[in-house]
Amino acid sequence: MQLEDLILVSVDDHVVEPPDMFDNHLPDKWKELAPRSVKRADGTDVWVYEGSEIPNIGLNAVAGRPPEEYNVDPTRYEEIRAGCYDIHERVKDMNRNGVLGSMCFPSFVQFCGQLFSRSQDLDVGLQMLRAYNDWHIDEWCGSYPGRFIPLSIPPMWDPQLMADEVHRVAKKGCHAVTFSEDPGALGWPNIFQGHWDPFFAACQDEGTVICLHIGSSSTMLGLKDGAPFDVLITMTPLNSMSAATDLLWSNVLRRFPDLKFALSEGGIGWLPYWLERIDYVYQQHRFWTHQEFGDQLPSQVARDHFTFCFISDRAGVEARHAIGIDNITWECDYPHSDSSWPHSPESVIKQLDGVPDAEINKMTYENAIRTFNYDPFSHIPKDEATVGALRSLQGA
Amino acid sequence: MQLEDLILVSVDDHVVEPPDMFDNHLPDKWKELAPRSVKRADGTDVWVYEGSEIPNIGLNAVAGRPPEEYNVDPTRYEEIRAGCYDIHERVKDMNRNGVLGSMCFPSFVQFCGQLFSRSQDLDVGLQMLRAYNDWHIDEWCGSYPGRFIPLSIPPMWDPQLMADEVHRVAKKGCHAVTFSEDPGALGWPNIFQGHWDPFFAACQDEGTVICLHIGSSSTMLGLKDGAPFDVLITMTPLNSMSAATDLLWSNVLRRFPDLKFALSEGGIGWLPYWLERIDYVYQQHRFWTHQEFGDQLPSQVARDHFTFCFISDRAGVEARHAIGIDNITWECDYPHSDSSWPHSPESVIKQLDGVPDAEINKMTYENAIRTFNYDPFSHIPKDEATVGALRSLQGA
Repeated sequence: MQLEDLILVSVDDHVVEPPDMFDNHLPDKWKELAPRSVKRADGTDVWVYEGSEIPNIGLNAVAGRPPEEYNVDPTRYEEIRAGCYDIHERVKDMNRNGVLGSMCFPSFVQFCGQLFSRSQDLDVGLQMLRAYNDWHIDEWCGSYPGRFIPLSIPPMWDPQLMADEVHRVAKKGCHAVTFSEDPGALGWPNIFQGHWDPFFAACQDEGTVICLHIGSSSTMLGLKDGAPFDVLITMTPLNSMSAATDLLWSNVLRRFPDLKFALSEGGIGWLPYWLERIDYVYQQHRFWTHQEFGDQLPSQVARDHFTFCFISDRAGVEARHAIGIDNITWECDYPHSDSSWPHSPESVIKQLDGVPDAEINKMTYENAIRTFNYDPFSHIPKDEATVGALRSLQGA
Repeated sequence: MQLEDLILVSVDDHVVEPPDMFDNHLPDKWKELAPRSVKRADGTDVWVYEGSEIPNIGLNAVAGRPPEEYNVDPTRYEEIRAGCYDIHERVKDMNRNGVLGSMCFPSFVQFCGQLFSRSQDLDVGLQMLRAYNDWHIDEWCGSYPGRFIPLSIPPMWDPQLMADEVHRVAKKGCHAVTFSEDPGALGWPNIFQGHWDPFFAACQDEGTVICLHIGSSSTMLGLKDGAPFDVLITMTPLNSMSAATDLLWSNVLRRFPDLKFALSEGGIGWLPYWLERIDYVYQQHRFWTHQEFGDQLPSQVARDHFTFCFISDRAGVEARHAIGIDNITWECDYPHSDSSWPHSPESVIKQLDGVPDAEINKMTYENAIRTFNYDPFSHIPKDEATVGALRSLQGA
């Protein structure tokens, strides 16, 4: 595989929401209640919603900054690349990086749209959340057909409303939704008690993939007094292992046999260990824990329900067959500090040394297309979707 | 490698302390203050120390019981195999399982001897802790020279006393000590602030290996309301990843360049991912986190300081060169529920398919002997130390 022939679909990037995002998606009577982007006297940009300030416009939106500054969260739109919040600049940054398609997680509303669940008036919160999703699907993703995989946020405070919203946005072509890797850590019921069933059922009905991004529990493995930040960065991907473990041993996967989860930013290199461990736990302990998977092993159940993704993970690529070649996708993580932008193709190709082309294609785009029901090639011919073709658009 | 030619040294087993353990190791004036094993009216055996009862004699001491009963913690000596607490029976059980050597972690005093740190009179606590170590080294391990790797417990309440005890027991040939994978979780200072330096310095001076057993933080990854027990069993080995991550990014390893840690019961299959992840974190983030390892990569620093072990972990065995063939040891975990006793040789050999003999020997005994300064063969000729030779002693 030549670098310029790669086709890259990233299943985990981030959007810093632009100041005008609510302008076109709310009836007039709701507009004045919408979150407003406000520039404070010190030049800092903040969102204001129901009288409260949300301080950072884009936590960790550091693409293009020198690594020495990664710890300073930018606080003004002028400090970050326009590609973080401007759709036209974003597509140019994707072209510069040779990236065909992208799924973008939210920023100021938090991973599961928690901001709206804290609304004083939840009816207002629901209007705002729907406007958010409409902006994301119709305006952000809709401006460049074939370039984005839309991703909705759910009204976490009510599983039936969550189900309704899954159905509503599915009609607009959105088949992915963010959820928490550990809703119990956010103060909601955890996944062991059936609370979320209406939501899970709606996702299963619509073929909507539930995306669990690391950090979507607002907790991090490795958070300790005085611990260097490196501890967090090292351990946080394991939040995905924890989330997958919860789901596997709960009865969610068995009760919703067609439900799919994407573990976002969790890496893949730990999977050979984990898949073996869950089978071992099952075979060694099920006589007293009373788990029952019929004629399947837990590792197969996991492969039937989970999709994983990697940024830089040679150990995982080498173990791709132990993991499941159809379960691996790729992510760019633009504009966060783990991102390889604008050198993603160079970073990816190094990790793919010795991997047959057919397997590369599965990991870099085919699995993403299948999993997320994403259809770029009806908009962009395949030979215009490669790294080489996209980079030539920007003269890179 | 034939099964009967394997030599097995287990770096992680457990002793259920026998009722008479304090009889021979305290001056008369202290004896009445020692923990006493008491049989209650309901037949339950408990330890009583300073008026408090410690309920279970051996959490999870299930060797030989049917798997359906693994969840019922035995509460009487009569309910558990005599090999749990009787040294002569223990050696027979080791022979039945073809195991040459064993390192045994404590039970009722907890992994770091925390029981004694809660003493109302810490002077008494220190006497009891020393008696515990003397019993363990001289009586338990000393009864069968060449069959055990002694392991001391530390007086956690005072790092200088910990250092003194490390020196004291080293004179008796004990070069391993238990410590907590996360002392901060137990209410002591964590490892990031230098509090434990006198202890670390003493261990470095004596070549004493610090053993961090999973669960020695009294916390478990995966502990959540309503979560099936399988979640805990799956996630707990990752406590070791967390402990290694803390140590790596703290400055402990850099300030004590010869200090060695053993990660007990943590498994090995996650290591290829972790070793790659720490190098990635270093190369991607050190410009702002200000980590500095000179001309080494973090993965090399980790291999210089850590020894890992596995029970059943084919993914780890396959990745042994990515992990470091000199860093892998084996464990039996007798008499706990993850143990393969009495079929450990059969379990191990299955995982070693295709591995050259020289590499098998490193993982099953040579690395353990070198790491723990353990010398079985001056007591037991090598040809009497094999699985086949030991099993023939018990007519197995």
